[in-house]
Amino acid sequence: MEASTTSNPNTSNFPRIMVGLSRGQEEPDASLVAAEARELGYDFMILPITFPSYRRFLFEQLVDSVDIKETKFMEEWRKGQPFCREDLVVKNADVSDFMVGQVSNWINLDSPDHNIRINSEVIMRQQITWIGHVGITAVLIPPPSDFLMNYARCVNNIFGTVPYINLWIKIPLVLEDEILESNETVTWERWNKFRTLCENHVRLSIALEVTQNLPEDNILDRWFAEPIRAVILPTTLFLSNAKGWPVLSKRHQAFIRKLIKYKPNFVIECAADGSNHASGGLSAYQEYMHYLNRTMPELTPVEQFALGYNDFLQSPLQPLMDNLESSTYEVFEKDSTKYTLYEKAIHHALLDRTTGSEEMIVIMVVGAGRGPLVTRSLIAAEKAQKRVKVYAIEKNPNAFVILQNKKAEVWGNKVTIVFSDMRFWKAPEKADILVSELLGSFGDNELSPECLDGAQKFLKSDGISIPTSYTAFISPISSSKLHNEVAAYKDLAHFETPYVVMFQAASELAKPCQIWTFEHPNRNMAADEDGNPINNYHNTRYSKVTFNIRESGILHGIAGYFESILYKDIMLSIHPDTHSIDMLSWFPIFFPLRIPIYLPSNTKLDINFWRLTNSHKVWYEWCVDPSFPLGPETISFSPSAIHNSLGRSSWIGL
Amino acid sequence: MEASTTSNPNTSNFPRIMVGLSRGQEEPDASLVAAEARELGYDFMILPITFPSYRRFLFEQLVDSVDIKETKFMEEWRKGQPFCREDLVVKNADVSDFMVGQVSNWINLDSPDHNIRINSEVIMRQQITWIGHVGITAVLIPPPSDFLMNYARCVNNIFGTVPYINLWIKIPLVLEDEILESNETVTWERWNKFRTLCENHVRLSIALEVTQNLPEDNILDRWFAEPIRAVILPTTLFLSNAKGWPVLSKRHQAFIRKLIKYKPNFVIECAADGSNHASGGLSAYQEYMHYLNRTMPELTPVEQFALGYNDFLQSPLQPLMDNLESSTYEVFEKDSTKYTLYEKAIHHALLDRTTGSEEMIVIMVVGAGRGPLVTRSLIAAEKAQKRVKVYAIEKNPNAFVILQNKKAEVWGNKVTIVFSDMRFWKAPEKADILVSELLGSFGDNELSPECLDGAQKFLKSDGISIPTSYTAFISPISSSKLHNEVAAYKDLAHFETPYVVMFQAASELAKPCQIWTFEHPNRNMAADEDGNPINNYHNTRYSKVTFNIRESGILHGIAGYFESILYKDIMLSIHPDTHSIDMLSWFPIFFPLRIPIYLPSNTKLDINFWRLTNSHKVWYEWCVDPSFPLGPETISFSPSAIHNSLGRSSWIGL
Repeated sequence: MEASTTSNPNTSNFPRIMVGLSRGQEEPDASLVAAEARELGYDFMILPITFPSYRRFLFEQLVDSVDIKETKFMEEWRKGQPFCREDLVVKNADVSDFMVGQVSNWINLDSPDHNIRINSEVIMRQQITWIGHVGITAVLIPPPSDFLMNYARCVNNIFGTVPYINLWIKIPLVLEDEILESNETVTWERWNKFRTLCENHVRLSIALEVTQNLPEDNILDRWFAEPIRAVILPTTLFLSNAKGWPVLSKRHQAFIRKLIKYKPNFVIECAADGSNHASGGLSAYQEYMHYLNRTMPELTPVEQFALGYNDFLQSPLQPLMDNLESSTYEVFEKDSTKYTLYEKAIHHALLDRTTGSEEMIVIMVVGAGRGPLVTRSLIAAEKAQKRVKVYAIEKNPNAFVILQNKKAEVWGNKVTIVFSDMRFWKAPEKADILVSELLGSFGDNELSPECLDGAQKFLKSDGISIPTSYTAFISPISSSKLHNEVAAYKDLAHFETPYVVMFQAASELAKPCQIWTFEHPNRNMAADEDGNPINNYHNTRYSKVTFNIRESGILHGIAGYFESILYKDIMLSIHPDTHSIDMLSWFPIFFPLRIPIYLPSNTKLDINFWRLTNSHKVWYEWCVDPSFPLGPETISFSPSAIHNSLGRSSWIGL
Repeated sequence: MEASTTSNPNTSNFPRIMVGLSRGQEEPDASLVAAEARELGYDFMILPITFPSYRRFLFEQLVDSVDIKETKFMEEWRKGQPFCREDLVVKNADVSDFMVGQVSNWINLDSPDHNIRINSEVIMRQQITWIGHVGITAVLIPPPSDFLMNYARCVNNIFGTVPYINLWIKIPLVLEDEILESNETVTWERWNKFRTLCENHVRLSIALEVTQNLPEDNILDRWFAEPIRAVILPTTLFLSNAKGWPVLSKRHQAFIRKLIKYKPNFVIECAADGSNHASGGLSAYQEYMHYLNRTMPELTPVEQFALGYNDFLQSPLQPLMDNLESSTYEVFEKDSTKYTLYEKAIHHALLDRTTGSEEMIVIMVVGAGRGPLVTRSLIAAEKAQKRVKVYAIEKNPNAFVILQNKKAEVWGNKVTIVFSDMRFWKAPEKADILVSELLGSFGDNELSPECLDGAQKFLKSDGISIPTSYTAFISPISSSKLHNEVAAYKDLAHFETPYVVMFQAASELAKPCQIWTFEHPNRNMAADEDGNPINNYHNTRYSKVTFNIRESGILHGIAGYFESILYKDIMLSIHPDTHSIDMLSWFPIFFPLRIPIYLPSNTKLDINFWRLTNSHKVWYEWCVDPSFPLGPETISFSPSAIHNSLGRSSWIGL
């Protein structure tokens, strides 16, 4: 079981959203328009840093001439002159807590002309350092064009020069002037190149401009894996309802509602001509946005539970090495879906079990914890009208105290409690049904195979194990957020460690594939005279699966899930397509990649996965190997390194 | 000037080569056959670790059956049993200094069968740990097949388990059983994948098996960038000369002679049937190899000079910030090719200079050092029969003492010596000819542009600068050796620093392209009233060049060269295609990449290069951006990060 085992870092539901205003006009008095925007109910305002007249410092007229006097003037200016206050829209720090600056969109950092490039760089640096000086912490910068190398280099240099400042780069969802289908991904490709050049700098994020045309959902989805700090909504995007008030189309509404979960800042961008919708004035837009937020659909129990755990990395449990805390049991015991499935499985197994009328059916719950499966076993027996004898085996001394309480106060003689590690217990009799809940997010990652290998010696030769089997699944995923979280540790070990995590800012590059299965009992296992396995090689696994990547994307890691057959057709699953409804006990598992890999559309991605073992631990190794089929040939890329060699960074202790 | 400025780390010419023997038969007594090989004149011997009978531990008969007894026996063996001494060819440490071990070639680590894979891994580990135990430090391991993932994972794990051992993986030059042209690169692709999976482990190297068929030179060349520790020559490769003695074909000879420069261990591998050539017996092969070594062609002066500097990374000079040592001047003054070109350039410039009959032509040598260009100026004047007045300007106080000596002892009144930084000197008159030798391996990387900007104010308006211009060139190169050298520092800074290096274990992935040029004097420069530049933006550069990569390869970095026009048609060059003959003063420059990038054949590689500046330093930034043209579309890869942002890791002080 692996979900939220630490205290919830953020329990707020959908809080109030932030809605800002961008007037898109010259603003003669920043303080005045700020006061106005505040009155209209906006939370912040985006303002250009300088007036358009500042464009004179591009010195565009020098492109085809060499005017010595003008050139000297330009060179003097480049050395670093203070702004004239008349050039500045934001003149002081008065309203800086209400402001986001905006770099002039007429600069051209990738101009073919050397001088225009240099002057653009000087202007951008000058504007941003001024904004930093007056204490504004975010700046909107222009969208990248197809030529963006020098722009990216300049932005990169600004991060090294100006501390604290956050840059929001404007990225339109689609290029409206181009209508080819493939262009739906052009802006993402540009963004991807830009941020790669800037080494995924944490202070670089997206101001996503929502466009009239929305691409297909699978294209939209990939944006949810990106660091979106602002969402820009031009007023022209809004329709008018019957009363002339601004509203969004159904598809736009759905997209915005999805975005709200990521808590971006919304920005209403006024039409250049200043025109509004017939009714409601400028405040109507922010009111509509708050209305969308208030009317978000109810959360499912899983969503509710996961809230605050989204994209939060946790280390998987090591229940064999460590003893769980009472609160951890408490959390997991609340998952009625899971225990109801178990109860059903036990019930069916009991019904299938024919015994002499006087004989009792022996159920052994191994790893009983605080006893939830013992209770469910008793209920199942009652429902099945079978006489049962239940053993509860538990190695955690603290949980065992609770088992003693339960036996004394509730269960009585029907239940025998045993303090022992199931692998080493000498059972007084053999079981008909062996019940365990040892599964991790990846199925076998909490050593269920090793534990049950040791326990199966006290299962009758025709006995039943619940679960009967479990299968691990993997899928390639993209999430710059999770990558950055792991990278923040600045060491190799964290890149070679799996995490339990509720994915939010992540997108799946292909559907999950299964990699291996464990079955219980394992009748092929070679055992010594005591019934114990001779070594653990039979629990090693190696699997290579191939994924077809439809849309280009960045591979940041591998998501892991499991499906388990508890008994016959009773399945428990965290596979996204077959997830047991409202089950809370497991979040997916995430295996990071040290170096993100760009995958062009139609890449063939091989993922190799190993489960390996020695006498004192179990670990996983993984590597990815992309290639590109080109007619009868294959263009290979470099494979990744093999991660976590010998379990050097992460392992599970036996 | 940038070549060998530190003491030569290794001055030996072609030393004796090491030639070993591999019998390819069962060896009943290791000590006996070792003594025999020694007597035959071999330096070492490759021996299998176990006898072929050890294959029984693959348990191949278990693949399609489950024999419980046999399975139990297998599981017990897997737990870790000692070898029976009868199974071992090498039974003790007696001859370990003469031995290289050989892992059984019948293991199959990528078998579809789970058990064969596991048993192969256990056998390989067992063999290698034994070899390590008896103190043998190198092991030959089998060639990788097309399926090599699990093999690579196992080798990777061995590096983590067995200390010191070096693994030589056998790689045939071409797959002899496949004759398609494209297969000439298959073995390299396999090797490349294998070592990438093993993270370029320093203890993994190649035992290159030379085959009957040799691929074209451009395919052969790429092996020279790889870590070849051994070269295996089957006896069947040798022809018989008229007297029946073994000899190699001309092409094979040429290839071997090229390999000798890399100092690998050569291995004579006997034919499986034990047959030899008619004359000379087994010792004839080693004698022939030594003969090839003795008859290597004479080294050119540059090769002779570079010897021991091959692949040795040096930091470029900072002659503006640091004062050079006398020994450094000494080294560079020996380069007669360079000074003869300068003399010729000055001579031609003097001839072109018409003056009044009584007027003297003023030559100013800026950065005169210990005066070699002053001497050459005087010689050129004599040859041209022109009366000259020579100024020698030097900022290094120690070199200036030598200049005083020269003036007192040799030059006399013809030469005026001035102690000053050329950028700040107030000249008493203006020069006709300004001579400087401020070039680095990349042309402008020792700040020649900045120095000459400051000096040009005392050049007459129609005066001549020698050099007149210089152009930087770059080319993409592959060299795992240089990559490993840089990586050994384990920090970011060394990956963002250019190095002066004589390439040996490197191969060029495309021909060099020019990126930018500086011209002197720069008449477009905007200057203040003192004639000094107002700022340094005019010396910034940005260039993007595109390379077509014909053959697949790994990009490890960028090689830099320069060409300089000293005067009119007199060129000085370290560009490989136009290199000034026997000129020694400059090795190429190498800009590393933090992450090596695999480039499939036909990749279009954009390299972006910047020369940037602020008030106190100059630095380079670089990034690469590969893509793959597919019909009208382009498959993009990820660009690299932009290296050395803001000169954070390397810069040249103004």
